Amino acid sequence: MKFTEMLRRRWEGADSLLCVGLDPNPARFPKALQGAERPIFDFCREIVDATADLVCAFKPQIAYFASRRAEAELEDLIAYIHEAHPGIPVILDAKRGDIGSTAEHYALEAFERFGADCTTVAPYMGFDAVEPYLRHPEKGAFILCRTSNKSGDELQMLSLGEERLFEHVARLVAGPWNRTGELGLVVGATYPHELEAVRRIAPDIPLLVPGIGAQGGDIDACVKAGQSPDGTGMVINSGRAILYASSGSNWVKAARDAAMKTRDAINAARRRS
Amino acid sequence: MKFTEMLRRRWEGADSLLCVGLDPNPARFPKALQGAERPIFDFCREIVDATADLVCAFKPQIAYFASRRAEAELEDLIAYIHEAHPGIPVILDAKRGDIGSTAEHYALEAFERFGADCTTVAPYMGFDAVEPYLRHPEKGAFILCRTSNKSGDELQMLSLGEERLFEHVARLVAGPWNRTGELGLVVGATYPHELEAVRRIAPDIPLLVPGIGAQGGDIDACVKAGQSPDGTGMVINSGRAILYASSGSNWVKAARDAAMKTRDAINAARRRS
Repeated sequence: MKFTEMLRRRWEGADSLLCVGLDPNPARFPKALQGAERPIFDFCREIVDATADLVCAFKPQIAYFASRRAEAELEDLIAYIHEAHPGIPVILDAKRGDIGSTAEHYALEAFERFGADCTTVAPYMGFDAVEPYLRHPEKGAFILCRTSNKSGDELQMLSLGEERLFEHVARLVAGPWNRTGELGLVVGATYPHELEAVRRIAPDIPLLVPGIGAQGGDIDACVKAGQSPDGTGMVINSGRAILYASSGSNWVKAARDAAMKTRDAINAARRRS
Repeated sequence: MKFTEMLRRRWEGADSLLCVGLDPNPARFPKALQGAERPIFDFCREIVDATADLVCAFKPQIAYFASRRAEAELEDLIAYIHEAHPGIPVILDAKRGDIGSTAEHYALEAFERFGADCTTVAPYMGFDAVEPYLRHPEKGAFILCRTSNKSGDELQMLSLGEERLFEHVARLVAGPWNRTGELGLVVGATYPHELEAVRRIAPDIPLLVPGIGAQGGDIDACVKAGQSPDGTGMVINSGRAILYASSGSNWVKAARDAAMKTRDAINAARRRS
Protein backbone atom coordinates (compact mmCIF):
# COMPACT_ATOMS: atom_id res chain seq x y z
CA MET A 1 0.00 0.00 0.00
CA LYS A 2 1.20 3.51 -0.78
CA PHE A 3 2.52 5.55 2.14
CA THR A 4 0.00 8.37 1.67
CA GLU A 5 -2.84 5.84 1.62
CA MET A 6 -1.61 4.25 4.88
CA LEU A 7 -1.46 7.71 6.39
CA ARG A 8 -4.97 8.65 5.23
CA ARG A 9 -6.39 5.46 6.71
CA ARG A 10 -4.78 6.22 10.05
CA TRP A 11 -5.87 9.89 10.03
CA GLU A 12 -9.43 8.69 9.52
CA GLY A 13 -9.48 5.27 11.22
CA ALA A 14 -7.57 6.27 14.35
CA ASP A 15 -8.84 9.86 14.20
CA SER A 16 -5.36 11.11 14.98
CA LEU A 17 -2.71 13.38 13.47
CA LEU A 18 -0.22 12.52 16.24
CA CYS A 19 3.10 10.89 15.43
CA VAL A 20 5.22 9.55 18.28
CA GLY A 21 8.91 10.24 17.71
CA LEU A 22 11.12 7.39 18.89
CA ASP A 23 14.32 9.12 20.06
CA PRO A 24 15.60 6.62 22.62
CA ASN A 25 18.16 8.11 25.00
CA PRO A 26 19.26 5.47 27.54
CA ALA A 27 20.36 8.17 30.00
CA ARG A 28 16.68 9.04 30.41
CA PHE A 29 15.28 5.51 30.58
CA PRO A 30 13.37 4.41 33.67
CA LYS A 31 15.27 2.41 36.27
CA ALA A 32 13.30 -0.72 35.43
CA LEU A 33 15.12 -0.96 32.07
CA GLN A 34 18.61 -0.43 33.36
CA GLY A 35 20.53 -3.65 32.98
CA ALA A 36 18.15 -4.99 30.32
CA GLU A 37 19.85 -6.87 27.50
CA ARG A 38 18.29 -4.72 24.72
CA PRO A 39 17.14 -1.61 26.59
CA ILE A 40 16.63 0.51 23.46
CA PHE A 41 14.39 -2.05 21.80
CA ASP A 42 12.50 -2.78 25.03
CA PHE A 43 11.92 0.89 25.78
CA CYS A 44 10.64 1.66 22.28
CA ARG A 45 8.45 -1.44 22.16
CA GLU A 46 6.72 -0.44 25.41
CA ILE A 47 6.12 3.07 24.05
CA VAL A 48 4.78 1.67 20.77
CA ASP A 49 2.38 -0.72 22.48
CA ALA A 50 1.18 1.97 24.90
CA THR A 51 0.44 4.53 22.16
CA ALA A 52 -0.32 2.59 18.95
CA ASP A 53 -4.08 3.23 18.99
CA LEU A 54 -3.48 6.96 19.46
CA VAL A 55 -1.15 7.67 16.54
CA CYS A 56 -1.14 8.07 12.77
CA ALA A 57 2.56 7.14 12.52
CA PHE A 58 5.76 6.34 14.41
CA LYS A 59 9.00 8.15 13.64
CA PRO A 60 12.22 6.54 14.84
CA GLN A 61 15.23 8.88 14.62
CA ILE A 62 18.16 6.85 13.30
CA ALA A 63 20.96 8.87 15.00
CA TYR A 64 19.95 7.58 18.44
CA PHE A 65 20.39 4.02 17.24
CA ALA A 66 23.51 4.61 15.11
CA SER A 67 25.51 6.32 17.86
CA ARG A 68 25.04 3.19 19.99
CA ARG A 69 25.58 0.43 17.42
CA ALA A 70 21.88 -0.40 17.76
CA GLU A 71 20.99 -0.87 14.08
CA ALA A 72 19.78 -4.41 14.80
CA GLU A 73 17.44 -3.05 17.47
CA LEU A 74 16.08 -0.52 14.96
CA GLU A 75 15.47 -3.25 12.37
CA ASP A 76 13.69 -5.36 14.97
CA LEU A 77 11.67 -2.41 16.23
CA ILE A 78 10.31 -1.51 12.79
CA ALA A 79 9.53 -5.17 12.08
CA TYR A 80 7.76 -5.34 15.44
CA ILE A 81 5.62 -2.28 14.64
CA HIS A 82 4.57 -3.78 11.30
CA GLU A 83 3.76 -7.12 12.87
CA ALA A 84 2.05 -6.06 16.09
CA HIS A 85 0.34 -2.94 14.74
CA PRO A 86 -0.20 -3.44 11.02
CA GLY A 87 -1.26 -0.38 9.04
CA ILE A 88 0.71 2.17 11.08
CA PRO A 89 3.30 3.76 8.81
CA VAL A 90 6.89 4.08 10.04
CA ILE A 91 8.82 7.20 9.06
CA LEU A 92 12.56 6.69 9.41
CA ASP A 93 13.94 10.12 10.28
CA ALA A 94 17.36 10.10 8.65
CA LYS A 95 17.56 13.41 6.73
CA ARG A 96 19.92 11.91 4.20
CA GLY A 97 20.77 13.90 1.14
CA ASP A 98 23.16 12.62 -1.52
CA ILE A 99 23.13 11.83 -5.21
CA GLY A 100 23.19 9.04 -7.72
CA SER A 101 24.34 5.64 -6.55
CA THR A 102 24.96 6.91 -3.01
CA ALA A 103 21.35 8.04 -2.69
CA GLU A 104 20.24 4.69 -4.10
CA HIS A 105 22.09 3.04 -1.24
CA TYR A 106 20.42 5.35 1.29
CA ALA A 107 17.02 4.43 -0.18
CA LEU A 108 17.91 0.74 0.16
CA GLU A 109 18.99 1.37 3.75
CA ALA A 110 15.69 3.03 4.69
CA PHE A 111 13.20 0.95 2.76
CA GLU A 112 14.77 -2.50 2.37
CA ARG A 113 17.16 -2.91 5.23
CA PHE A 114 15.06 -1.12 7.86
CA GLY A 115 11.64 -1.69 6.27
CA ALA A 116 10.44 1.91 6.74
CA ASP A 117 7.44 3.21 4.78
CA CYS A 118 8.83 6.72 4.50
CA THR A 119 11.95 8.70 5.28
CA THR A 120 13.15 12.32 5.55
CA VAL A 121 15.45 13.92 2.95
CA ALA A 122 17.44 17.18 2.78
CA PRO A 123 16.84 19.33 -0.34
CA TYR A 124 20.16 21.18 -0.70
CA MET A 125 21.46 18.95 -3.54
CA GLY A 126 18.29 19.32 -5.61
CA PHE A 127 16.09 16.73 -7.29
CA ASP A 128 19.04 14.35 -7.88
CA ALA A 129 18.98 13.67 -4.12
CA VAL A 130 15.24 12.84 -4.16
CA GLU A 131 14.87 10.87 -7.38
CA PRO A 132 16.35 7.57 -6.11
CA TYR A 133 13.68 7.44 -3.38
CA LEU A 134 10.96 7.74 -6.03
CA ARG A 135 12.12 4.47 -7.58
CA HIS A 136 10.34 2.88 -4.64
CA PRO A 137 6.96 4.13 -5.83
CA GLU A 138 4.91 3.14 -2.80
CA LYS A 139 7.31 4.71 -0.32
CA GLY A 140 7.15 8.26 1.00
CA ALA A 141 9.71 10.99 1.64
CA PHE A 142 9.32 14.20 3.63
CA ILE A 143 11.67 16.90 2.31
CA LEU A 144 13.05 19.48 4.76
CA CYS A 145 11.39 22.83 4.09
CA ARG A 146 11.07 25.10 7.16
CA THR A 147 12.67 23.43 10.14
CA SER A 148 11.67 24.09 13.75
CA ASN A 149 15.07 25.28 15.00
CA LYS A 150 16.12 28.89 15.38
CA SER A 151 19.08 28.97 13.02
CA GLY A 152 16.96 27.40 10.28
CA ASP A 153 16.45 31.06 9.34
CA GLU A 154 20.01 31.40 8.11
CA LEU A 155 19.19 29.68 4.81
CA GLN A 156 15.46 28.95 4.77
CA MET A 157 14.26 32.55 5.27
CA LEU A 158 16.58 34.10 2.69
CA SER A 159 14.70 36.26 0.20
CA LEU A 160 14.83 35.27 -3.46
CA GLY A 161 12.94 38.41 -4.48
CA GLU A 162 9.37 37.16 -4.91
CA GLU A 163 9.57 34.45 -2.29
CA ARG A 164 11.78 32.97 0.41
CA LEU A 165 13.94 29.87 0.05
CA PHE A 166 11.61 27.58 2.04
CA GLU A 167 8.70 28.64 -0.18
CA HIS A 168 10.76 27.83 -3.26
CA VAL A 169 11.46 24.37 -1.80
CA ALA A 170 7.73 23.88 -1.06
CA ARG A 171 6.91 24.77 -4.67
CA LEU A 172 9.52 22.36 -6.08
CA VAL A 173 8.43 19.50 -3.83
CA ALA A 174 4.69 19.97 -4.37
CA GLY A 175 5.23 20.45 -8.10
CA PRO A 176 7.93 18.99 -10.36
CA TRP A 177 9.63 16.77 -7.76
CA ASN A 178 6.47 14.94 -6.68
CA ARG A 179 6.35 12.38 -9.50
CA THR A 180 4.93 9.58 -7.36
CA GLY A 181 2.56 11.71 -5.30
CA GLU A 182 4.34 10.32 -2.20
CA LEU A 183 6.34 13.40 -1.17
CA GLY A 184 5.62 15.62 1.81
CA LEU A 185 7.29 18.56 3.55
CA VAL A 186 8.85 19.08 6.98
CA VAL A 187 7.60 22.34 8.51
CA GLY A 188 8.17 23.17 12.18
CA ALA A 189 5.29 23.92 14.56
CA THR A 190 7.34 26.80 15.93
CA TYR A 191 6.54 28.91 12.85
CA PRO A 192 2.75 28.97 12.25
CA HIS A 193 3.00 31.81 9.72
CA GLU A 194 5.35 29.79 7.57
CA LEU A 195 3.16 26.69 8.02
CA GLU A 196 0.30 28.73 6.61
CA ALA A 197 2.44 29.93 3.69
CA VAL A 198 3.45 26.36 2.88
CA ARG A 199 -0.15 25.16 3.08
CA ARG A 200 -1.15 27.84 0.59
CA ILE A 201 1.54 26.67 -1.84
CA ALA A 202 0.77 22.97 -1.32
CA PRO A 203 -2.89 22.55 -0.35
CA ASP A 204 -2.91 18.74 -0.26
CA ILE A 205 0.61 17.58 0.54
CA PRO A 206 1.28 15.86 3.90
CA LEU A 207 3.25 17.98 6.34
CA LEU A 208 5.52 16.43 8.95
CA VAL A 209 5.47 18.89 11.84
CA PRO A 210 8.08 18.68 14.60
CA GLY A 211 8.42 21.25 17.34
CA ILE A 212 5.44 20.85 19.66
CA GLY A 213 6.10 19.65 23.19
CA ALA A 214 9.70 20.02 24.30
CA GLN A 215 10.43 22.58 21.51
CA GLY A 216 7.54 24.84 22.54
CA GLY A 217 5.36 25.05 19.39
CA ASP A 218 1.72 25.97 20.02
CA ILE A 219 -0.60 23.11 19.04
CA ASP A 220 -3.69 25.19 18.37
CA ALA A 221 -1.88 27.71 16.15
CA CYS A 222 0.00 25.04 14.23
CA VAL A 223 -3.07 22.89 13.50
CA LYS A 224 -5.09 25.90 12.35
CA ALA A 225 -2.24 26.96 10.06
CA GLY A 226 -1.24 23.58 8.67
CA GLN A 227 -4.33 21.40 8.27
CA SER A 228 -5.59 20.56 4.80
CA PRO A 229 -9.11 21.61 3.78
CA ASP A 230 -10.57 18.38 5.24
CA GLY A 231 -8.86 18.82 8.62
CA THR A 232 -6.13 16.21 8.04
CA GLY A 233 -2.85 16.56 6.13
CA MET A 234 -0.53 16.78 9.14
CA VAL A 235 1.77 14.35 10.93
CA ILE A 236 2.45 16.18 14.17
CA ASN A 237 5.44 14.76 15.94
CA SER A 238 6.02 14.62 19.67
CA GLY A 239 8.99 12.73 21.04
CA ARG A 240 10.58 13.59 24.37
CA ALA A 241 7.39 14.98 25.97
CA ILE A 242 5.80 11.54 25.54
CA LEU A 243 8.79 9.19 25.91
CA TYR A 244 10.02 10.78 29.11
CA ALA A 245 6.71 11.89 30.62
CA SER A 246 7.78 9.99 33.75
CA SER A 247 10.92 8.18 34.78
CA GLY A 248 9.13 6.40 37.60
CA SER A 249 7.53 2.98 37.59
CA ASN A 250 4.42 4.51 35.96
CA TRP A 251 6.38 5.56 32.85
CA VAL A 252 4.34 3.51 30.36
CA LYS A 253 1.01 4.88 31.58
CA ALA A 254 2.47 8.39 31.77
CA ALA A 255 3.58 8.11 28.13
CA ARG A 256 0.11 6.94 27.09
CA ASP A 257 -1.55 9.76 29.02
CA ALA A 258 0.75 12.35 27.46
CA ALA A 259 0.07 10.96 23.97
CA MET A 260 -3.69 10.97 24.57
CA LYS A 261 -3.62 14.54 25.83
CA THR A 262 -1.63 15.64 22.80
CA ARG A 263 -3.87 13.82 20.34
CA ASP A 264 -6.92 15.39 21.97
CA ALA A 265 -5.43 18.88 21.93
CA ILE A 266 -4.67 18.44 18.22
CA ASN A 267 -8.17 17.16 17.51
CA ALA A 268 -9.77 20.05 19.41
CA ALA A 269 -8.07 22.47 17.01
CA ARG A 270 -9.00 20.61 13.81
CA ARG A 271 -11.55 21.65 11.23
CA ARG A 272 -14.24 18.95 11.12
CA SER A 273 -16.08 18.26 7.87
CA MET B 1 46.01 16.31 16.36
CA LYS B 2 43.62 18.69 14.66
CA PHE B 3 42.13 17.54 11.38
CA THR B 4 43.46 20.54 9.43
CA GLU B 5 46.95 19.90 10.79
CA MET B 6 46.79 16.22 9.73
CA LEU B 7 45.70 17.36 6.30
CA ARG B 8 48.48 19.93 5.99
CA ARG B 9 51.08 17.35 6.93
CA ARG B 10 49.80 15.00 4.24
CA TRP B 11 49.58 17.73 1.60
CA GLU B 12 53.23 18.51 2.28
CA GLY B 13 54.65 15.16 3.41
CA ALA B 14 52.98 13.02 0.77
CA ASP B 15 52.94 15.86 -1.77
CA SER B 16 49.39 14.93 -2.69
CA LEU B 17 45.94 16.54 -2.81
CA LEU B 18 44.31 13.25 -3.84
CA CYS B 19 41.66 11.64 -1.66
CA VAL B 20 40.53 8.11 -2.48
CA GLY B 21 36.78 7.71 -2.02
CA LEU B 22 35.86 4.31 -0.59
CA ASP B 23 32.46 3.54 -2.15
CA PRO B 24 32.47 -0.25 -2.08
CA ASN B 25 29.91 -1.79 -4.44
CA PRO B 26 30.14 -5.61 -4.28
CA ALA B 27 28.53 -5.93 -7.72
CA ARG B 28 31.73 -4.40 -9.15
CA PHE B 29 34.25 -6.33 -7.03
CA PRO B 30 36.84 -8.52 -8.76
CA LYS B 31 36.09 -12.23 -8.93
CA ALA B 32 38.85 -13.02 -6.46
CA LEU B 33 36.78 -11.47 -3.66
CA GLN B 34 33.53 -13.18 -4.44
CA GLY B 35 32.77 -15.62 -1.68
CA ALA B 36 35.09 -13.87 0.79
CA GLU B 37 33.75 -13.69 4.33
CA ARG B 38 34.07 -9.90 4.59
CA PRO B 39 34.36 -8.80 0.97
CA ILE B 40 33.68 -5.11 1.66
CA PHE B 41 36.41 -4.86 4.28
CA ASP B 42 38.85 -6.92 2.22
CA PHE B 43 38.25 -4.86 -0.92
CA CYS B 44 38.71 -1.54 0.86
CA ARG B 45 41.78 -2.70 2.76
CA GLU B 46 43.48 -3.73 -0.48
CA ILE B 47 42.68 -0.33 -2.02
CA VAL B 48 43.94 1.47 1.10
CA ASP B 49 47.23 -0.44 1.19
CA ALA B 50 47.76 0.05 -2.55
CA THR B 51 47.22 3.82 -2.48
CA ALA B 52 48.12 5.04 1.04
CA ASP B 53 51.41 6.68 0.04
CA LEU B 54 49.66 8.55 -2.78
CA VAL B 55 46.85 10.24 -0.85
CA CYS B 56 46.18 13.09 1.56
CA ALA B 57 43.01 11.40 2.90
CA PHE B 58 40.59 8.52 2.56
CA LYS B 59 36.84 9.13 2.33
CA PRO B 60 34.53 6.18 3.03
CA GLN B 61 30.92 6.82 2.02
CA ILE B 62 28.69 5.44 4.76
CA ALA B 63 25.65 4.63 2.56
CA TYR B 64 27.51 1.78 0.85
CA PHE B 65 28.13 0.16 4.22
CA ALA B 66 24.73 0.94 5.77
CA SER B 67 22.68 -0.51 2.92
CA ARG B 68 24.47 -3.84 3.50
CA ARG B 69 24.54 -4.01 7.31
CA ALA B 70 28.32 -3.54 7.09
CA GLU B 71 28.79 -1.01 9.92
CA ALA B 72 31.20 -3.38 11.67
CA GLU B 73 33.30 -3.55 8.50
CA LEU B 74 33.36 0.25 8.35
CA GLU B 75 34.49 0.49 11.98
CA ASP B 76 37.22 -2.06 11.33
CA LEU B 77 38.28 -0.34 8.11
CA ILE B 78 38.76 3.05 9.76
CA ALA B 79 40.61 1.45 12.67
CA TYR B 80 42.79 -0.36 10.13
CA ILE B 81 43.64 2.87 8.30
CA HIS B 82 44.65 4.56 11.57
CA GLU B 83 46.77 1.59 12.62
CA ALA B 84 48.43 0.65 9.35
CA HIS B 85 48.78 4.16 7.93
CA PRO B 86 48.93 6.57 10.85
CA GLY B 87 48.60 10.25 10.02
CA ILE B 88 46.22 9.83 7.07
CA PRO B 89 42.94 11.55 7.97
CA VAL B 90 39.67 9.70 7.38
CA ILE B 91 36.69 11.74 6.22
CA LEU B 92 33.43 9.89 6.84
CA ASP B 93 31.11 11.05 4.06
CA ALA B 94 27.70 10.99 5.73
CA LYS B 95 26.13 14.38 4.84
CA ARG B 96 24.09 14.37 8.02
CA GLY B 97 22.18 17.47 8.96
CA ASP B 98 20.02 17.66 12.05
CA ILE B 99 19.80 19.69 15.21
CA GLY B 100 20.32 19.61 18.95
CA SER B 101 20.55 16.22 20.60
CA THR B 102 20.05 14.40 17.29
CA ALA B 103 23.07 16.13 15.77
CA GLU B 104 25.04 15.32 18.93
CA HIS B 105 24.28 11.66 18.28
CA TYR B 106 25.41 11.97 14.66
CA ALA B 107 28.67 13.54 15.86
CA LEU B 108 29.15 10.64 18.27
CA GLU B 109 28.43 8.21 15.44
CA ALA B 110 31.07 9.75 13.16
CA PHE B 111 33.83 10.57 15.63
CA GLU B 112 33.47 8.09 18.49
CA ARG B 113 31.79 5.04 17.07
CA PHE B 114 33.51 5.11 13.67
CA GLY B 115 36.65 6.98 14.70
CA ALA B 116 36.63 9.38 11.73
CA ASP B 117 38.72 12.56 11.80
CA CYS B 118 36.20 14.55 9.80
CA THR B 119 32.73 14.22 8.32
CA THR B 120 30.44 15.98 5.81
CA VAL B 121 27.40 18.02 6.89
CA ALA B 122 24.41 19.56 5.06
CA PRO B 123 23.80 23.29 5.71
CA TYR B 124 20.03 23.62 5.16
CA MET B 125 19.17 23.69 8.89
CA GLY B 126 21.71 26.42 9.67
CA PHE B 127 24.40 26.65 12.34
CA ASP B 128 22.37 24.53 14.81
CA ALA B 129 23.20 21.53 12.60
CA VAL B 130 26.93 22.28 12.66
CA GLU B 131 27.51 23.35 16.25
CA PRO B 132 27.42 19.86 17.84
CA TYR B 133 30.31 18.80 15.61
CA LEU B 134 32.38 21.74 16.90
CA ARG B 135 32.19 20.32 20.41
CA HIS B 136 34.78 17.86 19.15
CA PRO B 137 37.35 20.62 18.66
CA GLU B 138 40.03 18.59 16.89
CA LYS B 139 37.61 17.08 14.39
CA GLY B 140 36.75 18.53 11.00
CA ALA B 141 33.54 18.95 9.02
CA PHE B 142 33.10 19.79 5.34
CA ILE B 143 29.83 21.64 4.75
CA LEU B 144 28.02 21.15 1.43
CA CYS B 145 28.34 24.34 -0.63
CA ARG B 146 28.30 23.79 -4.41
CA THR B 147 27.80 20.12 -5.16
CA SER B 148 29.00 18.41 -8.33
CA ASN B 149 25.60 17.18 -9.55
CA LYS B 150 23.48 18.89 -12.18
CA SER B 151 20.36 19.55 -10.11
CA GLY B 152 22.47 21.13 -7.37
CA ASP B 153 21.58 24.31 -9.30
CA GLU B 154 17.99 24.18 -8.15
CA LEU B 155 18.87 25.61 -4.74
CA GLN B 156 22.57 26.42 -4.74
CA MET B 157 22.54 28.79 -7.73
CA LEU B 158 19.49 30.80 -6.63
CA SER B 159 20.15 34.52 -6.62
CA LEU B 160 19.85 36.36 -3.31
CA GLY B 161 20.41 39.72 -4.98
CA GLU B 162 24.10 40.41 -4.34
CA GLU B 163 25.18 36.80 -4.32
CA ARG B 164 24.02 33.23 -4.91
CA LEU B 165 23.01 30.76 -2.23
CA PHE B 166 26.23 28.72 -2.41
CA GLU B 167 28.26 31.91 -1.96
CA HIS B 168 26.19 32.81 1.08
CA VAL B 169 26.91 29.35 2.52
CA ALA B 170 30.63 29.78 1.80
CA ARG B 171 30.60 33.11 3.65
CA LEU B 172 28.79 31.65 6.68
CA VAL B 173 31.09 28.64 6.89
CA ALA B 174 34.34 30.58 6.41
CA GLY B 175 33.13 33.28 8.83
CA PRO B 176 30.79 32.96 11.83
CA TRP B 177 30.33 29.17 11.74
CA ASN B 178 34.05 28.33 11.79
CA ARG B 179 34.62 28.66 15.53
CA THR B 180 37.18 25.86 15.74
CA GLY B 181 38.94 26.60 12.47
CA GLU B 182 38.23 23.00 11.45
CA LEU B 183 35.47 23.59 8.88
CA GLY B 184 35.80 23.21 5.14
CA LEU B 185 33.50 23.34 2.10
CA VAL B 186 32.35 20.78 -0.46
CA VAL B 187 32.63 22.25 -3.96
CA GLY B 188 32.34 20.09 -7.08
CA ALA B 189 35.10 19.89 -9.68
CA THR B 190 32.41 20.10 -12.35
CA TYR B 191 32.02 23.86 -11.74
CA PRO B 192 35.44 25.56 -11.88
CA HIS B 193 33.89 29.06 -12.00
CA GLU B 194 32.09 28.44 -8.72
CA LEU B 195 35.23 26.88 -7.24
CA GLU B 196 37.00 30.11 -8.06
CA ALA B 197 34.21 32.18 -6.49
CA VAL B 198 34.35 30.10 -3.30
CA ARG B 199 38.14 30.38 -3.14
CA ARG B 200 37.82 34.18 -3.36
CA ILE B 201 35.35 34.19 -0.44
CA ALA B 202 37.40 31.72 1.62
CA PRO B 203 41.09 32.02 0.71
CA ASP B 204 42.39 29.51 3.26
CA ILE B 205 39.63 27.02 3.99
CA PRO B 206 40.05 23.38 2.87
CA LEU B 207 37.85 22.40 -0.06
CA LEU B 208 36.62 18.84 -0.53
CA VAL B 209 36.24 18.46 -4.27
CA PRO B 210 34.27 15.55 -5.72
CA GLY B 211 33.48 15.20 -9.39
CA ILE B 212 36.70 14.34 -11.19
CA GLY B 213 36.99 10.91 -12.81
CA ALA B 214 33.62 9.21 -13.33
CA GLN B 215 31.73 12.51 -13.00
CA GLY B 216 33.81 14.23 -15.69
CA GLY B 217 35.31 17.27 -13.90
CA ASP B 218 38.49 18.65 -15.49
CA ILE B 219 41.48 18.25 -13.16
CA ASP B 220 43.55 21.09 -14.55
CA ALA B 221 40.72 23.64 -14.43
CA CYS B 222 39.60 22.62 -10.97
CA VAL B 223 43.08 22.77 -9.42
CA LYS B 224 43.78 26.16 -10.96
CA ALA B 225 40.46 27.47 -9.64
CA GLY B 226 40.45 25.92 -6.17
CA GLN B 227 44.01 25.82 -4.85
CA SER B 228 44.99 28.07 -1.98
CA PRO B 229 47.77 30.65 -2.46
CA ASP B 230 50.42 28.08 -1.49
CA GLY B 231 49.15 25.46 -3.95
CA THR B 232 47.42 23.26 -1.38
CA GLY B 233 43.97 23.68 0.22
CA MET B 234 42.15 20.97 -1.74
CA VAL B 235 41.09 17.41 -1.02
CA ILE B 236 40.30 16.13 -4.51
CA ASN B 237 38.25 12.98 -4.36
CA SER B 238 38.26 10.14 -6.83
CA GLY B 239 36.33 6.98 -6.09
CA ARG B 240 35.03 4.70 -8.83
CA ALA B 241 37.74 5.58 -11.38
CA ILE B 242 40.34 4.19 -8.94
CA LEU B 243 38.39 1.43 -7.17
CA TYR B 244 37.15 -0.17 -10.37
CA ALA B 245 40.08 0.63 -12.67
CA SER B 246 40.14 -3.10 -13.45
CA SER B 247 37.95 -6.03 -12.47
CA GLY B 248 40.61 -8.52 -13.52
CA SER B 249 43.27 -10.18 -11.40
CA ASN B 250 45.43 -7.04 -11.73
CA TRP B 251 42.82 -4.86 -9.95
CA VAL B 252 45.08 -3.80 -7.06
CA LYS B 253 47.86 -2.63 -9.34
CA ALA B 254 45.35 -0.99 -11.69
CA ALA B 255 43.91 0.96 -8.74
CA ARG B 256 47.39 2.09 -7.69
CA ASP B 257 48.27 3.13 -11.25
CA ALA B 258 45.01 5.10 -11.58
CA ALA B 259 45.63 6.83 -8.23
CA MET B 260 49.20 7.70 -9.18
CA LYS B 261 48.13 9.10 -12.55
CA THR B 262 45.48 11.23 -10.87
CA ARG B 263 47.84 12.50 -8.17
CA ASP B 264 50.38 13.40 -10.84
CA ALA B 265 47.78 15.18 -12.99
CA ILE B 266 46.73 17.19 -9.95
CA ASN B 267 50.33 18.03 -9.05
CA ALA B 268 51.09 19.13 -12.61
CA ALA B 269 48.36 21.77 -12.33
CA ARG B 270 49.40 23.10 -8.90
CA ARG B 271 51.08 26.38 -8.14
CA ARG B 272 54.48 25.64 -6.57
CA SER B 273 55.92 28.06 -4.06
